[in-house]
Amino acid sequence: MQEVRVLAPATVSNVVCGFDCLGFALEKPFDEMTVRRISERTVRIVNRDYFNLPTDPEKNVAGVVLLALLAKINADFGFEVEVTKHIKPGSGIGSSSASSCGAAVAANRLLGDRFSKLELVDFAMEGEQLASGEKHADNVAPCIYGGFTLVRSTDPLDIVSLDFPPLFATVIHPQIEIKTSEARAILPKQVSLKTAVRQWGHLGSLVAGLAQGDYNLISRSMEDFIVEPVRKSLIPKFDEVKLESLAAGALGGGISGSGPSMFFLSKMQATAERVELAVRSVYERSDCEFNTYVSEIVSSGVKFV
Amino acid sequence: MQEVRVLAPATVSNVVCGFDCLGFALEKPFDEMTVRRISERTVRIVNRDYFNLPTDPEKNVAGVVLLALLAKINADFGFEVEVTKHIKPGSGIGSSSASSCGAAVAANRLLGDRFSKLELVDFAMEGEQLASGEKHADNVAPCIYGGFTLVRSTDPLDIVSLDFPPLFATVIHPQIEIKTSEARAILPKQVSLKTAVRQWGHLGSLVAGLAQGDYNLISRSMEDFIVEPVRKSLIPKFDEVKLESLAAGALGGGISGSGPSMFFLSKMQATAERVELAVRSVYERSDCEFNTYVSEIVSSGVKFV
Repeated sequence: MQEVRVLAPATVSNVVCGFDCLGFALEKPFDEMTVRRISERTVRIVNRDYFNLPTDPEKNVAGVVLLALLAKINADFGFEVEVTKHIKPGSGIGSSSASSCGAAVAANRLLGDRFSKLELVDFAMEGEQLASGEKHADNVAPCIYGGFTLVRSTDPLDIVSLDFPPLFATVIHPQIEIKTSEARAILPKQVSLKTAVRQWGHLGSLVAGLAQGDYNLISRSMEDFIVEPVRKSLIPKFDEVKLESLAAGALGGGISGSGPSMFFLSKMQATAERVELAVRSVYERSDCEFNTYVSEIVSSGVKFV
Repeated sequence: MQEVRVLAPATVSNVVCGFDCLGFALEKPFDEMTVRRISERTVRIVNRDYFNLPTDPEKNVAGVVLLALLAKINADFGFEVEVTKHIKPGSGIGSSSASSCGAAVAANRLLGDRFSKLELVDFAMEGEQLASGEKHADNVAPCIYGGFTLVRSTDPLDIVSLDFPPLFATVIHPQIEIKTSEARAILPKQVSLKTAVRQWGHLGSLVAGLAQGDYNLISRSMEDFIVEPVRKSLIPKFDEVKLESLAAGALGGGISGSGPSMFFLSKMQATAERVELAVRSVYERSDCEFNTYVSEIVSSGVKFV
């Protein structure tokens, strides 16, 4: 086997009360990636899309992941990676993560699956480090494991796959840019213990609701008392979109990653599609360009084709 | 039916990373309580133990709960409650909660079970208000629901019963007094967002570990970065007791409630008994009197006899 083709899905991190630890994988959108073993000891990036991402492997998230893999095994060969991205960079649904994870999973297959999922998350975090300056696992974990994942700890790295019932996500991506630095700067450095307790009570019951397949509990638990209240100011019409989604039957939702995308969960596909119509109608009354997606939350992450 | 007898169990609240929301019910120790319907419109307290608790119903936790129940239904009768407490007041394993819940559950049976468990928690919180000045549900929730409970919210009150695998608790109660006011005063008012995230990542994975019956995950998740580090100074030999319990095979543990009791969880009864020997041997080398208990964590709360 000299070539492996994968689909690397979009992911939602910072799932309401689960800031910095809870994420899930969508079925679509996804990036298409092909990784080939080449004899030169290098990494070659071939972009087949219009995003003009860097082709210097040290400046490309898939590139740094592949370089890290090659370094780890002292390889006397290299990789070429051909990328057709469909997940727009900066959308807040794990675009860089998809590139990092797709590269890691495809290359690992070429290496005879010698690394575990947990090790692949660790490699993919090299890409996140390049993209955001931070080695966070919130998007790469669900991208590799699929479904809902909880990052218990990044040092040592510990990823928990959660049980969950059928769920559908509606995502709306307003085409605006939110600087990660700005989204970070407005976060409080300190929170009151009382508010922290409310937040972790909700995260605990969200995890319980997912495990028990209790949609009502999932819905009651989807509240964020710390991050959403400050970050929502960066997203046009956030409150209106949220209100309309809930009115259309969504269980709850919030900001995906650090935005600008928003996501809403529904029990049924038909509801998720009604939610899509509802959020579209809010944005159609604005000047802002946007995309929407409806996707089941699936238990697979990066898929081989 | 004019008389109902119940056993009201001890409970552990503030379960490591689940400060102020996660608790569980023990099988023993428990208080024995008998509630009788009487024709006088009053509440009479009869203490059958040596704790000298108040017999004025307005100053007795079972008393205020029964008064609240009677007021709610505009009763033209009253209750007598006979109490044999085995759970020492001030032990940190829900002594006041057992009295409040035993009274509420027994009286409710005399009233034809007209109130739901959730409503009974609400009534029992009147007792907690009297005992501690705060209407918290951390002990009364597991005392009434049994097993592990999570308080998602106190306003509105929302209690989540968690799934959990077989677990055994070893409790050690050093006979010292910790003033609730002191235990509260040393808590930080503010915590860093980073530490709060670590704590809720652990609580989320603890709930997942319980739901999945993954003992290793339960063990990895039992860490408290916020409360234990400051409160353990109030408990003699805390670090030594914890180290020895882990060495004896406990999955993890910490301070029960606001102390002075400590608890440790084990997968098997035999391990919990080894942990008991280990913690006893630490305290036997000190001047401090103590009691220990080993109990399964059971899915029933207050039991009818």
